[in-house]
Amino acid sequence: MTDGTLLYLSRNDVESLGLEMAEIIDVVEKGFFELGHGRVEMPPKPGIHPGEKANAFIHAMPAYIPALESAGIKWVSGYPDNPEKGLPYITGLLIFNDVDTGIPRAVMDCTWITAMRTAAASAISARFLARPESETVGVLACGVQGHRNLEAMSVCFPIKRVKAFDVRPEQSRRLAQFAEMTLGLEVKIVSNPKEAVVGCDIIVTSGPILKTPHATIQSGWMAAGAFASLVDFDSYWSREALGQADKWTTDHLGQYTYYKEVMGFFQNCPPVYADLGELVTGKKPGRETAEERTFAANLGLAVDDMAVAPLVYQRAMEKGIGTLLPL
Amino acid sequence: MTDGTLLYLSRNDVESLGLEMAEIIDVVEKGFFELGHGRVEMPPKPGIHPGEKANAFIHAMPAYIPALESAGIKWVSGYPDNPEKGLPYITGLLIFNDVDTGIPRAVMDCTWITAMRTAAASAISARFLARPESETVGVLACGVQGHRNLEAMSVCFPIKRVKAFDVRPEQSRRLAQFAEMTLGLEVKIVSNPKEAVVGCDIIVTSGPILKTPHATIQSGWMAAGAFASLVDFDSYWSREALGQADKWTTDHLGQYTYYKEVMGFFQNCPPVYADLGELVTGKKPGRETAEERTFAANLGLAVDDMAVAPLVYQRAMEKGIGTLLPL
Repeated sequence: MTDGTLLYLSRNDVESLGLEMAEIIDVVEKGFFELGHGRVEMPPKPGIHPGEKANAFIHAMPAYIPALESAGIKWVSGYPDNPEKGLPYITGLLIFNDVDTGIPRAVMDCTWITAMRTAAASAISARFLARPESETVGVLACGVQGHRNLEAMSVCFPIKRVKAFDVRPEQSRRLAQFAEMTLGLEVKIVSNPKEAVVGCDIIVTSGPILKTPHATIQSGWMAAGAFASLVDFDSYWSREALGQADKWTTDHLGQYTYYKEVMGFFQNCPPVYADLGELVTGKKPGRETAEERTFAANLGLAVDDMAVAPLVYQRAMEKGIGTLLPL
Repeated sequence: MTDGTLLYLSRNDVESLGLEMAEIIDVVEKGFFELGHGRVEMPPKPGIHPGEKANAFIHAMPAYIPALESAGIKWVSGYPDNPEKGLPYITGLLIFNDVDTGIPRAVMDCTWITAMRTAAASAISARFLARPESETVGVLACGVQGHRNLEAMSVCFPIKRVKAFDVRPEQSRRLAQFAEMTLGLEVKIVSNPKEAVVGCDIIVTSGPILKTPHATIQSGWMAAGAFASLVDFDSYWSREALGQADKWTTDHLGQYTYYKEVMGFFQNCPPVYADLGELVTGKKPGRETAEERTFAANLGLAVDDMAVAPLVYQRAMEKGIGTLLPL
């Protein structure tokens, strides 16, 4: 589109499009298929760190996915002190460009996209690494990613029940309500984290990301044949428990290596068996036996966001949602 | 500002603010002062290269300047084929964030800002490297940067006359009109590039940036005591002419080295004497004699843009220009 207008989509606009998790999973998987075939341009993500706060960041996440005619950038900030001020931890915008002219087509709030694509990537990892008949999900930390991961797993597996653990009981109650009312699942709220791991087919840890893992989950808790998605990186797992991994995967080997060697995450974790592009393209097999313990430690990539952006843009144009602005 | 709104400024909005070149020069110089003191966070600029076109790019240029309370990113594209389609070569947006919360405050068109800050950086280099009594400017290639550089030099020096050269005569006529009517200068349109160099105190080359320089300017043309701003990098200059340089400078040594060693620009150019941060902070002296031939090969940095962004934002808020959008 080179008609001199720019589509703006607020957070409410994006949420009101009615996009479903299944659609998000589908486009994110396409993004990883392209990535796995080496057909995505995704430079390292640089960032700035304003303010005196230790862990505040704003990251630039550009990507170009030719097959999806998607080019653009997510500019996303994380300010740990924001929730105390009644503001969201994660905020930001995504710019979606016309691939033929470079001209910006749309600016959209990236909060919802970030939440959805993160869970979608978990579910795509699970498709290759969890047992297809997986029925029971354990969720440890029941915030936005706890909700979204449970939803995404329910799209891809015949999930029947969830065991919900959170240090803040009101969070597990909120997840329980969502699981029962929206997803139709049987729910057990547990007060001991061990109960949310033992006997589960799929385990999702989605607490805060910590440089020094609290390492709550102990060796022997995770059942043979289970799959774990580590949305909060390695924060929740003891090294002994991770030592039981048969397959340890991530979404991007290059970025994982950076997070490990430069930023100090994932110390003493198992060696990476495959990244998600290799799994999606079949370059490496996923689960091979019913007994393997499999893991996905996905980092979140620009390809996730830029796979979703064209879908958001097209749906908004079809529905006439958003504000058209002069360029 | 954390009131849940985002200010959008279109290209027309930005241009209608009435910001003057002197103001732009002032804030860009502040940015370089901070940069020279090591107080700017400016990671390397990654980019994507959509389409089949050889030289199309979209670059991410993030920076954080604490002293100016400026944090954000310019996401700027250059598509060489656009002018054939009646579209601008350079387009893009700048996102300006609240440093205390990371929340986006404004999205603004970056075309005007890019044009102005590029010329401002030339003039700041000239302040340290040209003779204070400089009166005559030679402009080779009279497009946007020819206009803006002439304007910026007129702010900083007692400029009386300009010699204008362009391969397209209508371009030199347009610059001549601007120089006479707006800047009140005496103008000579010249048909031979040599005439736009010989006898000039300040020389601006602002043609297309080429990997293989056309090297039009020969040794012996540039007068002793002159200063040259190479907006088009080393495209216009023969190596013999550059061999006459007494001081060869750039805006950022690290990025210059990248452009030279990785991208292949500036081959066989003189060694860098200083970068602009070193000049502005007085860490290295600028011109030291009336006879030196001095050069600035500035690349354009995120610090330029993010020094201008707060000024644009504040002026727009004061004047009530732009569109307030829900976040």
